Amino acid sequence: MGGLAFLLLPFLAPMATTAVNPALRALASLNLQVFPTFQPNEVDHFGFYNTKTFRQRYLIADKYWKTYDGVILFYTGNEGDITWFSNHTGFMWDVAEKLKALLVFAEHRYYGDSLPFGEDSFKDAKHLNFLTSEQALADFAELIRHLKRTVPGADGQPVIAIGGSYGGVLAAWFRMKYPHLVVGALAASAPIWQFEELTPCGVFMKIVTEDFRKSGTKCSESILRSWGAINRLSNTGSGLPWLTRTFHLCTSLNSEDIQRLKDWISETWVNLAMVNYPYPANFLKPLPSWPVKVVCQYLTNPYMSDSLLVQNIYQALNVYYNYSGESRCNNISETTIGTLGSRVWGYQTCTEIILPFCTNGIDDMFEPRAWDLEKYSDDCYKQWGVRPRPSWITTVYGGKEIHSHSNIIFSNGDLDPWSGGGVTEDLSDTLVAVNIPEGAHHLDLRSSTDTDPPSLQLARSVEVRHMKQWISDFYGNYRKQP
Amino acid sequence: MGGLAFLLLPFLAPMATTAVNPALRALASLNLQVFPTFQPNEVDHFGFYNTKTFRQRYLIADKYWKTYDGVILFYTGNEGDITWFSNHTGFMWDVAEKLKALLVFAEHRYYGDSLPFGEDSFKDAKHLNFLTSEQALADFAELIRHLKRTVPGADGQPVIAIGGSYGGVLAAWFRMKYPHLVVGALAASAPIWQFEELTPCGVFMKIVTEDFRKSGTKCSESILRSWGAINRLSNTGSGLPWLTRTFHLCTSLNSEDIQRLKDWISETWVNLAMVNYPYPANFLKPLPSWPVKVVCQYLTNPYMSDSLLVQNIYQALNVYYNYSGESRCNNISETTIGTLGSRVWGYQTCTEIILPFCTNGIDDMFEPRAWDLEKYSDDCYKQWGVRPRPSWITTVYGGKEIHSHSNIIFSNGDLDPWSGGGVTEDLSDTLVAVNIPEGAHHLDLRSSTDTDPPSLQLARSVEVRHMKQWISDFYGNYRKQP
Repeated sequence: MGGLAFLLLPFLAPMATTAVNPALRALASLNLQVFPTFQPNEVDHFGFYNTKTFRQRYLIADKYWKTYDGVILFYTGNEGDITWFSNHTGFMWDVAEKLKALLVFAEHRYYGDSLPFGEDSFKDAKHLNFLTSEQALADFAELIRHLKRTVPGADGQPVIAIGGSYGGVLAAWFRMKYPHLVVGALAASAPIWQFEELTPCGVFMKIVTEDFRKSGTKCSESILRSWGAINRLSNTGSGLPWLTRTFHLCTSLNSEDIQRLKDWISETWVNLAMVNYPYPANFLKPLPSWPVKVVCQYLTNPYMSDSLLVQNIYQALNVYYNYSGESRCNNISETTIGTLGSRVWGYQTCTEIILPFCTNGIDDMFEPRAWDLEKYSDDCYKQWGVRPRPSWITTVYGGKEIHSHSNIIFSNGDLDPWSGGGVTEDLSDTLVAVNIPEGAHHLDLRSSTDTDPPSLQLARSVEVRHMKQWISDFYGNYRKQP
Repeated sequence: MGGLAFLLLPFLAPMATTAVNPALRALASLNLQVFPTFQPNEVDHFGFYNTKTFRQRYLIADKYWKTYDGVILFYTGNEGDITWFSNHTGFMWDVAEKLKALLVFAEHRYYGDSLPFGEDSFKDAKHLNFLTSEQALADFAELIRHLKRTVPGADGQPVIAIGGSYGGVLAAWFRMKYPHLVVGALAASAPIWQFEELTPCGVFMKIVTEDFRKSGTKCSESILRSWGAINRLSNTGSGLPWLTRTFHLCTSLNSEDIQRLKDWISETWVNLAMVNYPYPANFLKPLPSWPVKVVCQYLTNPYMSDSLLVQNIYQALNVYYNYSGESRCNNISETTIGTLGSRVWGYQTCTEIILPFCTNGIDDMFEPRAWDLEKYSDDCYKQWGVRPRPSWITTVYGGKEIHSHSNIIFSNGDLDPWSGGGVTEDLSDTLVAVNIPEGAHHLDLRSSTDTDPPSLQLARSVEVRHMKQWISDFYGNYRKQP
């Protein structure tokens, strides 16, 4: 499944080095009390034969909430443990006081502790059948109605959906499909147009390449040349053990592992582009500020010998894999992933979330690889027993024909490869694009820091301004005066 | 199941005396060629385990279609054979030339010839599992995308959804959920608010009563008193055979049939109110003009003896059941129904389409009956093996919070009992109400006649004006000039 794995790039890979069920300590440090809660929800919202319910987890924090003129900020959870997302969405915690907000983080079904069939949830296609974006949105809808019914003061409040990455896609889709439940959505780094032929398949890797090109002289060129170097070395008698040693791999390379090795390296460059933040951060991995720049310091000369070039590639990768100095060896079947969350994400990318990727080695720094839907489908069938329906997402969520909707902020960082499939120009007065030139993957959702670039500060203030407008529109139009 | 049957009032009952698969002769008489076609569609749009497809039927007529500046009028089929609906939606045929329209009539899954599992479709809750409004809307969406891909000229055209009754509800919901596929919707007599507590449960029967009250002196009073008369007669020794004879019933009444008899009579009054058209028509049954007036001619004296009152009730019913003079005996398990279509409609009213009805004998002319969800649910479970989710429709389609949508015409006739759950006031500039004082159930969708009242003519012209506006907006905004 090597070839497939590369094409199954997760939006992000939240399982990383953090534990599957991280403690809530980070939240406590924000001085906001958080309550993890479970709410029964239908396993199948769209059929009545299966009457099973499951416990959906959500986190709720009400320290700054005001029931008179506040708001409910509702994080539409994505492909991972919701605790991790609540820990990495500092923006919501930062604006809670200003907006008098109740914070709710809703976990996506089949991730974290929200498993429809417990341990059996991942067993086969039959048990995975209820893992779709439509079911997840319906969970959010039922949860909001539940909160409005049961939390005193919630009923008269506007709700705003917020999410990043796939969670941002869900936030946008939620506003489109359930505008009666949320007054607006902040969709951060949400590649809603990375489907079908809405965006050329090469754009993603082109942006990755551009990040490396701009981050150091000859950097992307070095990477482009490295593939040939690896190929040539792997064809020599001593090449495989040498590559194993040079990359500090945990297990010895066979010749059939070479594609997987190159995919692992490619994914690392992709991840680095996604987390190319202006300050030290621990999102997928602990990293220095502007990590791509640091990586590129090792990649200034594409024209050295194959073995020297590959040694430099290793040094560069090491910025990602061993910045903390704790790593002993590298496992090429893991980039940041390897655990539950991303396994099931693979199912989603084999059913609804079909993201065509391709490279040509000309506009990008990768070996050429065409988008091959037929092979992709066959690989999906082998791994999951299902086949993708690549045009369904456009059918159900509208593709580029979304101008009739309203109140969605699409924020994107220019450095983020996912921005290629994002909405980066205003579609109307209320479908607005916020672009952050120095931004990588949903930088704006992170906690504010002293070193935030002005463009990021501006982006956040525009976002808050829109949200305040939605809130005041809500109270202006619908509040029953006492 | 007597009690349930009353509460399972279909929106309308298209199976009636027409054959299940009526010929297309009526269409031919309109001089428009019509092509019945089948298109494979997913049985389960919302899951990937079941990969079965089924043949969805649709009718298509292109005589007046112009691909340069025309429109596709798309009938969102409801609970019956689509041929029947195309025969009874003369409005679309009437406006085809004016709007240069391609007409498409899409059949609703599980009705007519669009059976996901053929003969097995109605076997049990497992096979009925895919009968939901969401699946039906997804069928329509896939069908529109299919037409745009395959019919030359269709791709650059706006589509308008049109439907009446449950089909009107679907047209409105389709515009809400798939605004990228239809520029607007004409939702005729669509009771989108007949759910949960959006409308008081007594309104429906109150409107029925009002129709009878206005159609003849003492008419509703006579009906109100008739229930007691029937009850008293059924308690006497000779009462049951007398009632059997008097009502010309096909089978002898037992004492446990009395409730069913009264329900059958009640349903007849309801149906008469629905089809109280200003000219002779054959919608559910062949009927004279203003049939409720004709019925009320027999019901002018509520204070006669029980047996005389009941004999008058029979005469009144006979207007409905034997206007054509062909009926030999009356079957109280049928009003207009009894065939496939309405059987499955019962499933829909036991799952999603939960329409609370109640009577109190004060505001209406019926015996008091409370809305009893618990009993309703138990009856559903007995009959179909499923239980209703009464709040789901509001969760998914928004209830009264639909002001953020656009381009929907809600037309209602004041005489139509379903208007009580309809939208009868403008919600915004583009969510408009068209009320027809002399109108019964989606009168505006019928063919125009020489005797159409002015209010009906006005309603249709307002509807056409809105549709023309949507079409010109579409071409103004999106046409790529050659």
